[in-house]
Amino acid sequence: MSIETAIADLRKVLGDRVSTSKSDLDLHGANEAHFAPCPPDAVVYPANTDEVSLIARTCYAHDCPIVPWGTGTSLEGHALAIHGGISVDMSRMDKVLRVSAEDMDASVQPGVTREALNTELRATGLFFPIDPGANASLGGMASTRASGTTAVRYGTMRDNVLGLEVVLADGRVIRTGTRARKSSAGYDLTALFVGSEGTLGLITELTLRLQGQPEAMSSAICAFDDFESAINTVIMTIQMGIPMARIEFVDDEMAAAFNAYAGADFPLKPHLLLEFHGSAASVAEQAERFGEIVADMGGSDFKWSTRPEDRTNLWKMRHNAAYAAASLRPGARIVVTDMCVPISRLADAVRETRADIAASGLMGPILGHVGDGNFHSTLLVDPANPEEKQIALDLAHRMAQRALAMGGTVTGEHGIGMGKLGYMEEEHGQAWQVMGDIKRTLDPKNLMNPGKMVRIN
Amino acid sequence: MSIETAIADLRKVLGDRVSTSKSDLDLHGANEAHFAPCPPDAVVYPANTDEVSLIARTCYAHDCPIVPWGTGTSLEGHALAIHGGISVDMSRMDKVLRVSAEDMDASVQPGVTREALNTELRATGLFFPIDPGANASLGGMASTRASGTTAVRYGTMRDNVLGLEVVLADGRVIRTGTRARKSSAGYDLTALFVGSEGTLGLITELTLRLQGQPEAMSSAICAFDDFESAINTVIMTIQMGIPMARIEFVDDEMAAAFNAYAGADFPLKPHLLLEFHGSAASVAEQAERFGEIVADMGGSDFKWSTRPEDRTNLWKMRHNAAYAAASLRPGARIVVTDMCVPISRLADAVRETRADIAASGLMGPILGHVGDGNFHSTLLVDPANPEEKQIALDLAHRMAQRALAMGGTVTGEHGIGMGKLGYMEEEHGQAWQVMGDIKRTLDPKNLMNPGKMVRIN
Repeated sequence: MSIETAIADLRKVLGDRVSTSKSDLDLHGANEAHFAPCPPDAVVYPANTDEVSLIARTCYAHDCPIVPWGTGTSLEGHALAIHGGISVDMSRMDKVLRVSAEDMDASVQPGVTREALNTELRATGLFFPIDPGANASLGGMASTRASGTTAVRYGTMRDNVLGLEVVLADGRVIRTGTRARKSSAGYDLTALFVGSEGTLGLITELTLRLQGQPEAMSSAICAFDDFESAINTVIMTIQMGIPMARIEFVDDEMAAAFNAYAGADFPLKPHLLLEFHGSAASVAEQAERFGEIVADMGGSDFKWSTRPEDRTNLWKMRHNAAYAAASLRPGARIVVTDMCVPISRLADAVRETRADIAASGLMGPILGHVGDGNFHSTLLVDPANPEEKQIALDLAHRMAQRALAMGGTVTGEHGIGMGKLGYMEEEHGQAWQVMGDIKRTLDPKNLMNPGKMVRIN
Repeated sequence: MSIETAIADLRKVLGDRVSTSKSDLDLHGANEAHFAPCPPDAVVYPANTDEVSLIARTCYAHDCPIVPWGTGTSLEGHALAIHGGISVDMSRMDKVLRVSAEDMDASVQPGVTREALNTELRATGLFFPIDPGANASLGGMASTRASGTTAVRYGTMRDNVLGLEVVLADGRVIRTGTRARKSSAGYDLTALFVGSEGTLGLITELTLRLQGQPEAMSSAICAFDDFESAINTVIMTIQMGIPMARIEFVDDEMAAAFNAYAGADFPLKPHLLLEFHGSAASVAEQAERFGEIVADMGGSDFKWSTRPEDRTNLWKMRHNAAYAAASLRPGARIVVTDMCVPISRLADAVRETRADIAASGLMGPILGHVGDGNFHSTLLVDPANPEEKQIALDLAHRMAQRALAMGGTVTGEHGIGMGKLGYMEEEHGQAWQVMGDIKRTLDPKNLMNPGKMVRIN
């Protein structure tokens, strides 16, 4: 069989870095969401670009599917080998290759995690701002066009990847972009590969834009009597041009979860969690102007802090939101979905979704990167009860429909993976066919993460 | 002949909006740079997307090349019909279709110019920030991935186009992107079409990101004894995170040109021209902090102003830089080129380029969007002297080579067009082949602005 031949050929060169042990296969067949386990036929651990190219050439010769693996933190089952083949685990390609403080950029291998990069950058006065919560690999973050809490200020991976090295399906190695900050020279292949979920090639190096560590940072929390006031506060803040670094919404149910899980003392109301970056004077001004908006909107309990430990605790709590939500119902499994709409429709989207969740009988706290119009529901289901899972999936389906009806997208940041392929045609219309045409051109044998993103006959 | 058949068929439907008058052909065969005139076989003026689709279908049936035309302000001959065919002039598709103040976005037809859009936005408190100098059409700006003086703060067209409607070569109409601020749903076709110079399809609608008009703005001018100090000031300003709205370099020769052409009173030294946007307090703080850097770097004559008329005059003068430069040598024609490098290499790039220009005997003021690492030389040549033009083109060639040797790009913002096709392989290596593959997939008959961007056999 051709997959077996590919694995045997790879083993001749890579030795014990080709693994078929049950534990390795199980680990690379698992996911953090609700999808059934789906182990690959082998896991391969390349050490450099040449080896990745060799892997691609070998798999191309033997028609063996290739699925890249970062840290496995995808919430849509991106890295599941649904057509078998090999999982290419990038964890050993974990070097920061170059940091230029003067140019405020860095080149890294795809297995470097965002926390590892920021640890390495600490002494330089720079940081990499994109923060999806999980300590994901940067290759994975680029592949899913990740964003998170800081996108309102610093953009998404789309905005922070200057260039890539990519191994194509046939093993060719290309470089996209340059180290210049901008270019008008040719098609934007960097943007084409960012968000392509491993379906067009394997990312083997990233050149990333860095930011200067802000001179001052402060965090704030405030509560509102109703979520409309919270969301209107966000809209007004953005319209006034206050350059928030983070502005996160949590509903009353999520506030309760933080109290129970993280020992917070939030009133059981909708909240905004905030962070301001800038000079000391501008951070103070931002907090003051924001405070005025909160007062106008009837918000209360506006507390702000410049103490680093308060800030760290706040965002640690926020990053553990999924665990906090899950703790509301011991033993529950979570069905997480995200949607993103024009901000003028955000209050409607949240209202309709909350009503929908309430009618379902499930618990489902809502939280979101509301500065982008993006929010998540975390639906809690009994894993032993398939009906509950179906109710949750139906809710997620209606959220996707709602996003499209409001001129938005079925996923602001989690990606398509296994869960949202069915919405691609509805969201993109004939443009989805163009995506399929591009896929066929770059991956004529349909070996790169097959079954994801597009449908190939 | 097939082009003639296409024109005859189009005339049956579009009547006198298909023009073959000499004046129309000459106008659409001209360019603002040094390329020889190259009139199309006809000029067509569509009024809406359906007509553009009809034009594409008709041309597809008869193998007639299609070249889009915005305002003709390209500096690299993008819109020249080098393989004949029709020029599709978008100037009658000039409607602002929708403005959402709450979402800070707008949808426009491709013939709307940036000044027309900003005039229409004035009452909303919003503006569209991208400013390449010329009053270009927004379709043309998207097609060339334009940027200009404000990119250091607001990015380029890459960052400010949320979505597009595009007519493909065969007449299919697709939409890319959504009105959501971010998405992880599929390949980034918006970014693929932005900067594709009309070679993949015809843009018929753009959804643009808008900005709030700053509460306060101020402008500043300062002089330096040498250009290295000016450029080091820029690097330090960016590293300190001062959010400049504009930071423009002009060399001593350009300062002389402004004095002669615009009645300025610049000392004959390198200068930085600046603009700050923000709240009143933050603009004052930015100017103060910037002033401290200037003092550290030995800059002098730091003048700043919050008077709108001073600001308007400053940027009007900057926008007329090409005319000012040309006035240094009456009767001269200009050869303008741009290059963009990592900012750590900018001082080297400017130094080597100035030495190269000095050795050539030509006049060639330098100015640039130095916050991006991007600068231009404006070489003045006698149109009656082909040797001078060749000297200028050779200089431009060495600038391109220099950009590549320094890890940069042969064009930061002017694009490839006629002038820089020869550098595509050197800049992109095998990635250029991938661009060609994508071109063949989307435009199998090679009818969309043929001869540009890629080479198709």
